[in-house]
Amino acid sequence: MPNPTAAMLVIGDEILSGRTRDANMHHLAGQLTAIGIGLQEVRVVADVHERIVGAVQSLSRTYTYVFTSGGIGPTHDDITADAVGAAFGAKVDVREDARALLAAHYAKTGSELNEARLRMARIPDGATLIDNPVSTAPGFKIENVHVMAGVPSIFNAMVQSVLPTLTGGAPLLSETLRVERGEGDLAGPLGLVAAEMPELSFGSYPFQRDGVHGANLVVRGTDQAKLDRAMDRLREALDL
Amino acid sequence: MPNPTAAMLVIGDEILSGRTRDANMHHLAGQLTAIGIGLQEVRVVADVHERIVGAVQSLSRTYTYVFTSGGIGPTHDDITADAVGAAFGAKVDVREDARALLAAHYAKTGSELNEARLRMARIPDGATLIDNPVSTAPGFKIENVHVMAGVPSIFNAMVQSVLPTLTGGAPLLSETLRVERGEGDLAGPLGLVAAEMPELSFGSYPFQRDGVHGANLVVRGTDQAKLDRAMDRLREALDL
Repeated sequence: MPNPTAAMLVIGDEILSGRTRDANMHHLAGQLTAIGIGLQEVRVVADVHERIVGAVQSLSRTYTYVFTSGGIGPTHDDITADAVGAAFGAKVDVREDARALLAAHYAKTGSELNEARLRMARIPDGATLIDNPVSTAPGFKIENVHVMAGVPSIFNAMVQSVLPTLTGGAPLLSETLRVERGEGDLAGPLGLVAAEMPELSFGSYPFQRDGVHGANLVVRGTDQAKLDRAMDRLREALDL
Repeated sequence: MPNPTAAMLVIGDEILSGRTRDANMHHLAGQLTAIGIGLQEVRVVADVHERIVGAVQSLSRTYTYVFTSGGIGPTHDDITADAVGAAFGAKVDVREDARALLAAHYAKTGSELNEARLRMARIPDGATLIDNPVSTAPGFKIENVHVMAGVPSIFNAMVQSVLPTLTGGAPLLSETLRVERGEGDLAGPLGLVAAEMPELSFGSYPFQRDGVHGANLVVRGTDQAKLDRAMDRLREALDL
């Protein structure tokens, strides 16, 4: 059975303006790979209703799982819940379960559950809440879309809440061979070995740093014995 | 006149598997913002022909400029040139101008211009070459799509080659107000000021680190005097 697939949607002007460097994509990629879910596509879109709706619909149709980050806070530019609801034709309003979580949290911390904070209890009908152990305001899951916060510490915590609910596949294993030799000299042998073992995926990732250049040859698959064999064949083909 | 828009397409399994953390998006975002081109969307797709073709067509239709990174090296998994050619129905083959650049470079460095390296001279008909001062193998531009390398040092150099050819807009300026106060307490005043000045864009980017939490309130626009006025209004509305 092929492994389940996933896409991520990063919602945030601050990434696109170059103000903030996204960290959530890299984190989610590693977590999904480890449980055998193949992250196949990531999109970053601005805080624009139609863009979010369109991306959610497109990704939701194409992949097993979708994960979003950003835009679920209390300010006027936090429009993700409404856009995701609209993508599925679900009504979005303050929901009692989410409101109760926030009320208990702010009662404890002594902050007021004002109108802005109540925005964080706006959850589409039919969605399941995603636990937020850092700052309480929940994410949610609707259809195959998991809506999570953009702040990395909260995003990571929500990912931990979600992972046990996903059906993974065979873990995606990889082996890397670092070769300090021009990629053009590695390409021929690498291509031959890749053609011999079509059930594995072979990639070449060149580097050029401090005057040293070469490539990391990476083999990916779900069977460690086959990966080991591929590494032997690569070393042989490259006279290493 | 509204500013020109842009999208980026990152091509690379290594980003999606979590092996490599992308750096090119953040670099390009900053460079474009500085010359008044609004980066509106980024997509990261795997090294799969159909995915690249589909993304190039969709982004090319939607935005003024498209920039791609990755997949133009000499190895079997470098399929970007063919996919971008296919997206525009352009024939892709070894082109004499690109071949001559590579031949001169490898003659100088003493490496062989073998079949693998010749792949890097595969350029779609009708495309213009993009200068690569780091390692010679060129990028190219076809229609509104700029195809560049994935290795950050080369990507950055190609961006420098391309920037003078773009028509920018009014530089996008921004001012930031860091407030160590719960976002829920900032949201009301922030929303009021944002509604007062609809020609500016107001964002709130919460942080939570080392026990300190708050938000960076960012105002963006093209008129410095208006940004200054917005900052005054924010400080006033927040009693700062």
